[in-house]
Amino acid sequence: MITDDSEQNSPPPWLPGLRELLEPDRISIDEELRQEMGTDRWYAAALPDVVVQARTREDVVATLRYANEHRIPVTTRGAGVGYVGGCVPVQRGILLSVRKMDRILEMNPADGVAVVEPGVILNDLQEAARKAGWYYPPDPASLNECSVGGTIATNAGGPRCVKYGVTRHYVLGLEVVLPDGQVLETGGRCHKNKTGLDLIGMFVGSEGLLGVVTKATLRLIPHPEARAMLAATFPNFETAAAAVQDILNHGWQPSGLEITDAFTLRAARDYLGPGSLPDGDAHLIVELDGRRESVLNEISSLRSLVEDLGAITVQEARDPEACEAIWKLRREFSYSLRATGLTKLNEDIVVPRSKLVDLVRFAKKLETDAGVFIACFGHAGDGNIHTNLMVNESDPDEWSRAVAALDTLFQWVIANEGKITGEHGIGLAKKRWFSDAVSPTALDVHHRLKLALDPNGILNPGKFIE
Amino acid sequence: MITDDSEQNSPPPWLPGLRELLEPDRISIDEELRQEMGTDRWYAAALPDVVVQARTREDVVATLRYANEHRIPVTTRGAGVGYVGGCVPVQRGILLSVRKMDRILEMNPADGVAVVEPGVILNDLQEAARKAGWYYPPDPASLNECSVGGTIATNAGGPRCVKYGVTRHYVLGLEVVLPDGQVLETGGRCHKNKTGLDLIGMFVGSEGLLGVVTKATLRLIPHPEARAMLAATFPNFETAAAAVQDILNHGWQPSGLEITDAFTLRAARDYLGPGSLPDGDAHLIVELDGRRESVLNEISSLRSLVEDLGAITVQEARDPEACEAIWKLRREFSYSLRATGLTKLNEDIVVPRSKLVDLVRFAKKLETDAGVFIACFGHAGDGNIHTNLMVNESDPDEWSRAVAALDTLFQWVIANEGKITGEHGIGLAKKRWFSDAVSPTALDVHHRLKLALDPNGILNPGKFIE
Repeated sequence: MITDDSEQNSPPPWLPGLRELLEPDRISIDEELRQEMGTDRWYAAALPDVVVQARTREDVVATLRYANEHRIPVTTRGAGVGYVGGCVPVQRGILLSVRKMDRILEMNPADGVAVVEPGVILNDLQEAARKAGWYYPPDPASLNECSVGGTIATNAGGPRCVKYGVTRHYVLGLEVVLPDGQVLETGGRCHKNKTGLDLIGMFVGSEGLLGVVTKATLRLIPHPEARAMLAATFPNFETAAAAVQDILNHGWQPSGLEITDAFTLRAARDYLGPGSLPDGDAHLIVELDGRRESVLNEISSLRSLVEDLGAITVQEARDPEACEAIWKLRREFSYSLRATGLTKLNEDIVVPRSKLVDLVRFAKKLETDAGVFIACFGHAGDGNIHTNLMVNESDPDEWSRAVAALDTLFQWVIANEGKITGEHGIGLAKKRWFSDAVSPTALDVHHRLKLALDPNGILNPGKFIE
Repeated sequence: MITDDSEQNSPPPWLPGLRELLEPDRISIDEELRQEMGTDRWYAAALPDVVVQARTREDVVATLRYANEHRIPVTTRGAGVGYVGGCVPVQRGILLSVRKMDRILEMNPADGVAVVEPGVILNDLQEAARKAGWYYPPDPASLNECSVGGTIATNAGGPRCVKYGVTRHYVLGLEVVLPDGQVLETGGRCHKNKTGLDLIGMFVGSEGLLGVVTKATLRLIPHPEARAMLAATFPNFETAAAAVQDILNHGWQPSGLEITDAFTLRAARDYLGPGSLPDGDAHLIVELDGRRESVLNEISSLRSLVEDLGAITVQEARDPEACEAIWKLRREFSYSLRATGLTKLNEDIVVPRSKLVDLVRFAKKLETDAGVFIACFGHAGDGNIHTNLMVNESDPDEWSRAVAALDTLFQWVIANEGKITGEHGIGLAKKRWFSDAVSPTALDVHHRLKLALDPNGILNPGKFIE
């Protein structure tokens, strides 16, 4: 989507005025930088006119105030590792990176909080918390590269959400610069707060459409003493999905409950070599955490249950290394899909949990009908199944069949009370389906809220509210 | 605050038009009913012109549409057991009760959800979930009498929030009638959802200022197999508060962590008789939940820790009856305060957890300075300490000293990064302090959001957004 229109390379008329407001190192029209900042992990890209790399809140305030006065589009960017083109500056203007605002300002177990700037890499926050003996649970797969600001913009999840909830449940306080440059401080370091409306919830998951987060106060919880895991194979997806529900029905509260389908397992066997995975057309991971002795006893007891539920093989992990080996295998599933040489269109679909099997059956039918491979795996306990269309990008016919299949898939999801995105957000990738995915009244409310907070529509224009 | 102005008893001119829209049994101008519906557990009261007792969503739609056209104030009411006058119709108009919309529409473990109308009593929901083997954690002390709609309006908490989070974390879907009568359906039965802005979060905790909830889809979690508890006494509040932090630092994730101060304990000893409570000027309750065997082992291990942390006495509860006895004692603390004959002004203050001791020290100083008894107890893990000013209501001088002391208390709380309400909401009781408790920009954002959703200002006027 990058055009080579030479007009894109002439600096905009408003640039000199912006330069007057910022230190020279904050602002750039370097084409390479603009290209780098004009894309994320999705395939869309667009060239911003200017890149602002903020280092302070004041940089953000000055940029937004100026942009608002001059009606310049501003697209905010963290680490740029989103999957939906959410930070692609489709209407050019200013690309505002907060990646260099990357300080952990406070790690405070006594209050049970961490205070961070938005550019902090999530894993750095998690490590700092762990060193202090505390825990910050949200754990999207991108945790080694994504910024905390990005996880706030998308209300990021991950495998451990099944027990610990999503990012929104951990944001206690925010400093947000509004489009007109006003600084909103809301919430704080208290673990409960019923003072007025939930302004924090307004901004968490708002994908850069309402304001720019410049500081976040996050809730930490006590770090579980130990973890233990099971990795099981099942004859088919149906028995594995039934096991998920049975485990929960028995009162288990796993800290991870991940399911993988046959296509993915075949790709993994091809990639990792024969004998790398035991037999079975479905794979289930269950993680428990808590006190060491409890977890070790519990994992044996859970193993018996999983065996009773029809597992073909069950592997037990009782120490950190063995657990990490299972999570590593789980990550290899993704790499195996990449190794097919096909392009992965990763759709983070959510269905009511009772429809896990229906979703996968529908996906298999779609695979046949559309002639596009489909791999399903993900967070079974939440009904959040990453449904990956595996496409040969160099085959235009296959590509258009895949695009049509996405349409069919999302229509099925919507008709079955599912959600078209559980973790990644709408961005550009799902914009087409947004108005089908929410009711007309909800759409109207979105417009009203956007107008209330960003009356000039400068923030991330061209995305899900226009 | 009930006035006897006879004008209040002449029916309003808009009444006949409203009667045309509703079944006769929905609408009443009976004075006794209007008085009953004009108050909650706080001491304020006001007479509405008319009471509408909705039985269906259509009743709510018709009422709001008519009220919006004619600019009639509408104050929504659940079970009316709030502590802050949130449902007191201070600008008269229509009191809209949703208490009779009390059906549990669905209890669905396969999807991990319950679907309920707003008038369902919280305990009925919890019992129905428990019977199905599942768990709905939010547990305010009023759970036997409060409505689910009320818990949504206030984002209710309770002792188990320290592990399980507040009401907001359990609301997956809402049907909300907007002030103009439009029906907003948002969210649904999926456990993750990143489709657009968090409209649910807008309404949870909005105290009836933005819309009227007519249906809620709530997240259920697997029911813990067992619970066990400790009840410990400490020589003073300081050692008990230090123990709270130490327990968390050791990686424990209690499902309850409640602290009680010396004043409350003295009242309890007076009320329950000598020998009812072991020695000590502070009391701590710790609850664990999980697998039965684990919990029983863990409670012994936790007992050793609590003894090491300076407890004078530690009592262990290893079965449901023994646990209930401890929670019963905890509830007796409240009754003991009532038995003093004094009026309890219950302020649900939250402080950063490191300031638990500072808060209680300040309260003791305030007690001396103001000459008003102050009892502190509550959810120590969250820093959410109910600070109760115990006042002789018949002594006007003491009453005015208490009112002044509240001012001093809230100023201290705000200056110490605390929150003036963690669970009850602003309502009327804390309206005076609301604009001090949030920043001017936050206040501005509140106004903008209110204007966006309720442009005519018909919903719950006279409360924290005017």
